[in-house]
Amino acid sequence: MRLAELSESTDVAVATLKYYLREGLLHPGEVVSRTQADYDESHVERVRLVRALSEVGGLSLATIGEVLAMITDPGTDHLHVMRMAQHSLARNRRASDLGAGPEHVDRVRAWIERRDWQVDPADPFIDDLARAWAACDSAGLGLDEDRLDGYADSVEGVARIDVSTVPEDPEAAVRQVVLGTVLVDPVLAALRRLAQQHVSRRSVSGS
Amino acid sequence: MRLAELSESTDVAVATLKYYLREGLLHPGEVVSRTQADYDESHVERVRLVRALSEVGGLSLATIGEVLAMITDPGTDHLHVMRMAQHSLARNRRASDLGAGPEHVDRVRAWIERRDWQVDPADPFIDDLARAWAACDSAGLGLDEDRLDGYADSVEGVARIDVSTVPEDPEAAVRQVVLGTVLVDPVLAALRRLAQQHVSRRSVSGS
Repeated sequence: MRLAELSESTDVAVATLKYYLREGLLHPGEVVSRTQADYDESHVERVRLVRALSEVGGLSLATIGEVLAMITDPGTDHLHVMRMAQHSLARNRRASDLGAGPEHVDRVRAWIERRDWQVDPADPFIDDLARAWAACDSAGLGLDEDRLDGYADSVEGVARIDVSTVPEDPEAAVRQVVLGTVLVDPVLAALRRLAQQHVSRRSVSGS
Repeated sequence: MRLAELSESTDVAVATLKYYLREGLLHPGEVVSRTQADYDESHVERVRLVRALSEVGGLSLATIGEVLAMITDPGTDHLHVMRMAQHSLARNRRASDLGAGPEHVDRVRAWIERRDWQVDPADPFIDDLARAWAACDSAGLGLDEDRLDGYADSVEGVARIDVSTVPEDPEAAVRQVVLGTVLVDPVLAALRRLAQQHVSRRSVSGS
């Protein structure tokens, strides 16, 4: 198909598609003449993926470029792949953020140790959790260790599903981990709000 | 304290604090002379809250204004307050997003009915879930109804904690719901990544 048809199929403007091509977010079409190229279903899929990562995942185009590079050029070891994918997403996000104070990081490390979670002590998400927890403190949300334990109990159930659905094939695994990290978060956030409503209605009606 | 001291206490530039004052995100200090005002601990707390909502919650300053208005001028009924707070956050977010296709919304409604969740059929988070689920489809994540049910089982545990920790006092309740919605999401996201690591290490070590 021509670029105009790709634009129609994906509902993305031609100028935007040309930008994706220039930035390498979209692979070139097959050249059919000096001024024309031919695009296929792989281009439609790629454009949809870029839009999903951008609109639902909220990633910048630069991060999307890194994510796509990981998907098309994965590592080999399953656990390594998952950690590499997570680190890349964390690193990118952190560029615009402040780090957590050392006392907040220490609190998270102590909590993880008490919980006996097997986690790399240098994991970037320890810093993420420290910052997010400290922000709840600043806002007076009263998020104490008991409540965090309660959340962690439930989130372990989510993580067990995540890990059990990672395929053996390395390329498919990277795709699943990277996209699952970015795209399933909004699913979980929407589920949380719907579940809050269900739970609070049930508690009001006393059933 | 003077504005310069407020700046020092909060690590926020004087120019930014002046902007917050002009936009009504920060309440005025007590006027002590034609050119000076006095600020107190309530200003320090408010500035920290604005920064937390902006940096951790990722909210725009316009949305933060709405959130602060709800916190300082709450409704009365507990359930109504929770729904109003959620709707405001959802509405604001949706302004920049595309809606979900009707077939995706129908799929979510059917899933909710099968699950017997007591949820308002016009709830804006139904549309959110439909869009997020459709984005997972586009990305080929293989998120089927069984896996969504698994996630929902775990997320119900999160929601039970959320609802059980909402205070009776309406103003405190709005504060908890609005801030808990925005600020606990990043806590849960960080917990999910740490739990993934714990679960995948445990499965590799076979314990």
